[in-house]
Amino acid sequence: MKKILTLSTLALLISAPALAQTWVLTGAENSTDKGNWQISSDKLNIKDSHFSIEQKVLHGGKQEGSKVLTIRAKDGLTIALSPTRGMNLLHVEGFGVRMGWDSPVKEVVNPAFINLESRNGLGWLEGFNEMMVRCGYEWTGHPVTADGQIYTLHGKVGNTPASQVEVEVSDTAPYEIRVRGLVKESTFKKADLQTMTELRYIPGSNSFSLHDVLTNHADYPHDYQIIYHSNFGKPILEEGARFLAPMESISPFNDYAKGGLKEWQTYLGPTKGFDEMVFNIKPLSDNDHHTLAAVVNKAGDKGASIQFDTRQLPVLTLWKNTDTEKQGYVTGIEPGTSYAYPVTIEREQKRVKQLQPGESTQFDLTYTLLHSSSQVSDVEKTIKDIQGQTTLKTDETPIAKE
Amino acid sequence: MKKILTLSTLALLISAPALAQTWVLTGAENSTDKGNWQISSDKLNIKDSHFSIEQKVLHGGKQEGSKVLTIRAKDGLTIALSPTRGMNLLHVEGFGVRMGWDSPVKEVVNPAFINLESRNGLGWLEGFNEMMVRCGYEWTGHPVTADGQIYTLHGKVGNTPASQVEVEVSDTAPYEIRVRGLVKESTFKKADLQTMTELRYIPGSNSFSLHDVLTNHADYPHDYQIIYHSNFGKPILEEGARFLAPMESISPFNDYAKGGLKEWQTYLGPTKGFDEMVFNIKPLSDNDHHTLAAVVNKAGDKGASIQFDTRQLPVLTLWKNTDTEKQGYVTGIEPGTSYAYPVTIEREQKRVKQLQPGESTQFDLTYTLLHSSSQVSDVEKTIKDIQGQTTLKTDETPIAKE
Amino acid sequence: MKKILTLSTLALLISAPALAQTWVLTGAENSTDKGNWQISSDKLNIKDSHFSIEQKVLHGGKQEGSKVLTIRAKDGLTIALSPTRGMNLLHVEGFGVRMGWDSPVKEVVNPAFINLESRNGLGWLEGFNEMMVRCGYEWTGHPVTADGQIYTLHGKVGNTPASQVEVEVSDTAPYEIRVRGLVKESTFKKADLQTMTELRYIPGSNSFSLHDVLTNHADYPHDYQIIYHSNFGKPILEEGARFLAPMESISPFNDYAKGGLKEWQTYLGPTKGFDEMVFNIKPLSDNDHHTLAAVVNKAGDKGASIQFDTRQLPVLTLWKNTDTEKQGYVTGIEPGTSYAYPVTIEREQKRVKQLQPGESTQFDLTYTLLHSSSQVSDVEKTIKDIQGQTTLKTDETPIAKE
Repeated sequence: MKKILTLSTLALLISAPALAQTWVLTGAENSTDKGNWQISSDKLNIKDSHFSIEQKVLHGGKQEGSKVLTIRAKDGLTIALSPTRGMNLLHVEGFGVRMGWDSPVKEVVNPAFINLESRNGLGWLEGFNEMMVRCGYEWTGHPVTADGQIYTLHGKVGNTPASQVEVEVSDTAPYEIRVRGLVKESTFKKADLQTMTELRYIPGSNSFSLHDVLTNHADYPHDYQIIYHSNFGKPILEEGARFLAPMESISPFNDYAKGGLKEWQTYLGPTKGFDEMVFNIKPLSDNDHHTLAAVVNKAGDKGASIQFDTRQLPVLTLWKNTDTEKQGYVTGIEPGTSYAYPVTIEREQKRVKQLQPGESTQFDLTYTLLHSSSQVSDVEKTIKDIQGQTTLKTDETPIAKE
Repeated sequence: MKKILTLSTLALLISAPALAQTWVLTGAENSTDKGNWQISSDKLNIKDSHFSIEQKVLHGGKQEGSKVLTIRAKDGLTIALSPTRGMNLLHVEGFGVRMGWDSPVKEVVNPAFINLESRNGLGWLEGFNEMMVRCGYEWTGHPVTADGQIYTLHGKVGNTPASQVEVEVSDTAPYEIRVRGLVKESTFKKADLQTMTELRYIPGSNSFSLHDVLTNHADYPHDYQIIYHSNFGKPILEEGARFLAPMESISPFNDYAKGGLKEWQTYLGPTKGFDEMVFNIKPLSDNDHHTLAAVVNKAGDKGASIQFDTRQLPVLTLWKNTDTEKQGYVTGIEPGTSYAYPVTIEREQKRVKQLQPGESTQFDLTYTLLHSSSQVSDVEKTIKDIQGQTTLKTDETPIAKE
Repeated sequence: MKKILTLSTLALLISAPALAQTWVLTGAENSTDKGNWQISSDKLNIKDSHFSIEQKVLHGGKQEGSKVLTIRAKDGLTIALSPTRGMNLLHVEGFGVRMGWDSPVKEVVNPAFINLESRNGLGWLEGFNEMMVRCGYEWTGHPVTADGQIYTLHGKVGNTPASQVEVEVSDTAPYEIRVRGLVKESTFKKADLQTMTELRYIPGSNSFSLHDVLTNHADYPHDYQIIYHSNFGKPILEEGARFLAPMESISPFNDYAKGGLKEWQTYLGPTKGFDEMVFNIKPLSDNDHHTLAAVVNKAGDKGASIQFDTRQLPVLTLWKNTDTEKQGYVTGIEPGTSYAYPVTIEREQKRVKQLQPGESTQFDLTYTLLHSSSQVSDVEKTIKDIQGQTTLKTDETPIAKE
């Protein structure tokens, strides 16, 4: 898989003019561990681009031993992710805008201190503060006790330390940076789902992309589910902020969300007692199966958009958690194979997918930080184009009861 | 809160003659970690007092990575606490006496190796060996399955690594030492209870005090419970040792404890098959709401007393665990907001307290190591004075059934 | 116990000509931790034998912080064990043969990342990849919910970091190497079972032995169970490989295993959909109560044998997991005090043993890597001799229903 590509790249580095330089920060196979580590464009003798990439081992509280990898590009984005927490994206900043939110959980919690089964399967909430958590792959969604076991909230991958972490920097302008992390869900008799996550970023750009390859390494077919739980708060989210996506249909996740169905397009400010409203969306896509979903601020000059492929991620969950700021004022835009129902319901409703032995599947998403009116307008226009003449179907009845 | 005070202090240090020196040993916010660390009166050029403060990172077994902070005062106390285990006090020694006990658990167990939900919610017992464990704050008491989840024995704070640890030494005699530790119970949607614990000790003294400030950082009211589970074994505890406290009433915790109700004042020696007897006490206090509880040895020349405020901690649990020495020969004197019943019962009986958004509450306790007949007599006299003419009410019936 | 012996040895080292040299790699009592460490016959100025002993701290994924101790003998065996995982044996290699197998779990999983209660008590499977796991001692066997708690698969000891790890090398030829590890199951009010494991190996030999002493340190009698879960895959296991043991009786563990009862002597190649068949065996032994069980390859020139004492380990489980290679193609030869039924069944059927207060019991096993036809023949002959005229009793009905 990806590692083979890297080895090929290394072979090229030896035998031919180099295309990219690669650093292995973590490698379980050879027990590699760079710990605190840093490179920069300066150190690489790059003159026409300015960036640094740093890994830091954290300390204190429940983040003892957690790692954070941060890409910092001058006049571009700062992207922080955590190898210890399944390569989850912590926060992204740049151009005066932030993608991310403020959770009451402030630490980058080491999974060693998390019991996913606690709180009746809601232990995941003790570490949740990321801009993007992969929810999967053995299962995802709300917790449920079935088959005699607890399927804990949003699965295990977001609380699994990466087994292999590599940073690659292209040798030539625009010096694309790639960060790869292998996250394994390997349990004797149960699963051997391995995901090689990859983040690509061109320094100076206002967007980055994910290219994750999930492989079933087992000799038997295996179910999988994935939700890209992508979360945005201030300064994008505010009273009058808007959600944008080309949509075939929308329906409330549960009875409580019925009350907010008509106002799906807009957000409230921090609202005491709001808790959360969740909506199930069937997105429309263009001829290439690409679609786009976004949240933009009221003035329409800040926002975040996610481009994804509806063949890979056919459904979209909109999570409006416009409660108070300390409670976590945040909205989730969550492309997935599944909605957030328990795996039992997702199975019944045939949204749980399967990989054959040795089979891989890929997920490609582009996250863009929008920092001008024209960027927001462009996104609006794209979404309007995809929507075209299709009328949005609004279903008042949730498709399932939890 | 406390941190602001510290920052103010730092500001003073810069702008004015210093009042105290502060060292941050652990700081999750800035990922500070001093690891193995030591200061001493010698290093601080203090001539008229002799003490050292040392932090050590432990290794081996389930204590891998646990930290212990030890204050050692010449001709005074040695006080050991564990930042990794919620600032719990491990043991206190001095003047030929020890406050603490011998548990079969010998290691300072890193919470990473503890599953509080195991053994049907009794996982806490796998790490229990401290002289004082804070039991709280989301809940405390015996485990119970309710609301679909396990409320595990004595809550989580005692198994939560401190997020911020600071040591402060006053610049002037008597060089008061303060150790602060911030312990967070912060979970998205569930709780944001944060406790800034503080221990104060004047080198050479035979007592130290705790000043803990619990704050509800959430935007919603939140229940809390706290029990200061303070535990004493040899040499204070022995056959004929006595428990002392001014009391309005005492009752057995359960049917088994009925058999020991009449002898609540005295202790048995190590007794095979005794297991434990628990008593619920409503303490009396003086006009300032202060009260005192103590355990003293048979000869009346060794003991431990705890002074506390009945407005802060209105109830008192007496735990007599005078089983064999290897089983853990120990008594608990446990001031609290609650008795040790499951949270469900404490709720019913209205002992569960609540903090409004942003509200703080403080707990102040003074622990004194008694090492002479006169010190013991003084404690007895104080307790007698508080008891005054009030007759102790003995209830034979437990106030609740588990 | 053993530690006292070591101290005696140290005393001897000081006062008399040395008999052996000892290194303490881990010591919870004094917080000793050697971390990465190595000695070799060269460094010890030994000329007539060539070996090294190395401890390595692992990194990456869920093996972050796990330790592996490896003995490497020139022209002998390489033996790898993990102090972090209860002194479990990872794999043994030499003479072109391997004892061990290929699990989908590739990392030496740090127990900090394992929740034994997950998957309805099957969390143990998330770390299982060893050549030998001790399954015990508080309980073992398949998981069961009883007495209100989950008795998780195969107990806790295999996921408990060793509290004390010592390496000893004899000063004189043949320079016997001993590796001791103390693994504690000490929980207030519940258990104080401590096992001093010891592995002995003479460099150049094709066998090593275990001498484990389990002590009940509590003041009360305590039940215990132990299964030496010893696992072998390629190159020993293959189509036509054979299982050998002198047997009084054999019966299927469950209904599914009935189908394989007649072919208990031989193994299939990797077989899709096979899953596992388990058989309960009552072994025969010689006059000294010694017995031998083995698995040998088809050609009869490779194999692994285990010699044990039927007074210590009266029953034997044969686990045939001849599923596909990626699923884990492996057979388990598992001498024990118990079969693999849940502890509830083992209690009913009186196989759960008990230790009195302070009492110890010892387990002695010799593992031999067979690498020639004559070695295999010798094992076959020994087994045939023990079988003698006794006719194997084949019971078609499982002795219990799970």
